[in-house]
Amino acid sequence: MKFKLTILGSGGAIPTIEKRPTSQFLNIQERRFLIDCGEGTQIQLRKFGCRFTKIDHIFISHLHGDHYLGLIGLLSTFNLLGRINPIYIYAPKELEEILEIHFKITGKSFRFSIEFHPLNFKNKALIFEDTVLQVFSFPVSHSVPCCGFLFKEVKKSRNIIKTKIQNKLIPFEKLKLLKEGKNVDFNNELLKYKDYTKDSPKPRSYAYCADTQYDENLIPIISNVDLLYHEATFLEQMKERAKKTQHSTAKDAATMAKEANTKRLIIGHFSARYNEIINFEKEAKTIFENTIAVNDGDIFEI
Amino acid sequence: MKFKLTILGSGGAIPTIEKRPTSQFLNIQERRFLIDCGEGTQIQLRKFGCRFTKIDHIFISHLHGDHYLGLIGLLSTFNLLGRINPIYIYAPKELEEILEIHFKITGKSFRFSIEFHPLNFKNKALIFEDTVLQVFSFPVSHSVPCCGFLFKEVKKSRNIIKTKIQNKLIPFEKLKLLKEGKNVDFNNELLKYKDYTKDSPKPRSYAYCADTQYDENLIPIISNVDLLYHEATFLEQMKERAKKTQHSTAKDAATMAKEANTKRLIIGHFSARYNEIINFEKEAKTIFENTIAVNDGDIFEI
Repeated sequence: MKFKLTILGSGGAIPTIEKRPTSQFLNIQERRFLIDCGEGTQIQLRKFGCRFTKIDHIFISHLHGDHYLGLIGLLSTFNLLGRINPIYIYAPKELEEILEIHFKITGKSFRFSIEFHPLNFKNKALIFEDTVLQVFSFPVSHSVPCCGFLFKEVKKSRNIIKTKIQNKLIPFEKLKLLKEGKNVDFNNELLKYKDYTKDSPKPRSYAYCADTQYDENLIPIISNVDLLYHEATFLEQMKERAKKTQHSTAKDAATMAKEANTKRLIIGHFSARYNEIINFEKEAKTIFENTIAVNDGDIFEI
Repeated sequence: MKFKLTILGSGGAIPTIEKRPTSQFLNIQERRFLIDCGEGTQIQLRKFGCRFTKIDHIFISHLHGDHYLGLIGLLSTFNLLGRINPIYIYAPKELEEILEIHFKITGKSFRFSIEFHPLNFKNKALIFEDTVLQVFSFPVSHSVPCCGFLFKEVKKSRNIIKTKIQNKLIPFEKLKLLKEGKNVDFNNELLKYKDYTKDSPKPRSYAYCADTQYDENLIPIISNVDLLYHEATFLEQMKERAKKTQHSTAKDAATMAKEANTKRLIIGHFSARYNEIINFEKEAKTIFENTIAVNDGDIFEI
């Protein structure tokens, strides 16, 4: 079952030909999410073959242009392509005003509804859940209100061991109890759930830390995730600039990955002043070996 | 002396990988103009090697997203790159409100000023002039208020024929009169301007007809231009759709070029539903031979 992240943009505030502004496309078991939406995101979605008309949920971390300026164009394209399903947007509340004014002034009316959910910048919050996953927002530490997002699969009930139930004709209701970890009586026999079922796979998780300086408050929130995206706008040699702009260095990102005991780290949001992103990876790896400095179009699967 | 147009985007409302939304970069004698600014224009400017930090004047024809959604990102990038020179924006007045709200909500303050000039949608109007050229806006016929733009070099004074004035030591003031087409007395001799000067080159002109349906009112405004850009969103087989959306077909564009006695026609703003733009050129050429259907990155010089 799919848990696939596509990097649409790996650059910082000034987009370049190689590194577009931040955006990521996440497919978890055919639920498609867009995380941030910098200028040109709709083209990146096409370029990297993402089924973008299937996106139902868009998460915008904060209102710096490189994270949201592609949204109005994307929504307009949805409309031109005949969308009727609602789109759910999780973003700073001021974005709703920006959208409304654009559409009012330009006389746009869409056939689909925009369901707007303002983000909570004080606490971790459950913002979406269904039968297979939960999405949480959590405040990070940047120069404007900003949230990261945590995507976690829900732990599934136990799996039936098919070879064990063959020829037994156990009714569905009793199978369900076994899957829930309960022993059941059947034909005067006690069926122990441990004999008939095995544990379901470990739920997978992805944390997106948006734009942030190193913030130890994030550690308990993102601890043990399978995949962590942490921004790394600068190298350590520019740590003063990082501090001033409330961004991170590659070393900061790696320290976070290590402290939070994550399995894998990907870093991005590189400042346009750097030509060689390999130096980000080198710096991070001195602290956290399992690091990749991302390029536009990179795909990560869990 | 340069008169060079770079097509940054040749597509219609839905951008594709090959055809970005409308934008053009025009360099007339080192004055650099941007005409419309669809999403991703700043990347196209980089991609096609345009010196975009030298742009001082931006013309926005109308407030459909594919013509202005790249503006906020471009202005933000100007600021991040340290711009201090003012930028002059000629656009529908509502765009000023859109910009102000964006910058207010996102807390952006720029080191350069934005000088905003609302467009006149009733009459042709001179909106910019300096010693070498004039720019006019003129209303076109679209589903929302929309202007085209006409760029015309100013007719220069006559050129001195250098071989004729050698050894004559004619004072500067008298040369100036000759260049203005006046005969002058010098050392008891009547110098006839026709003997000492020749006519300056014919001023060059470019007309950008934005998004419009065929509108015969444009003919006198754009007549005899060296280069005409006219949109051609559809082929003739979809003329009903063109009429409904107040766009043109390739045939409409060619008819305009013919009626206005233009020298060369370029067509663009092709609907994303068409894969082969050669068919636009074929259709137009049946009426106006000197037509090119443009691609992103095409350059036209006069």
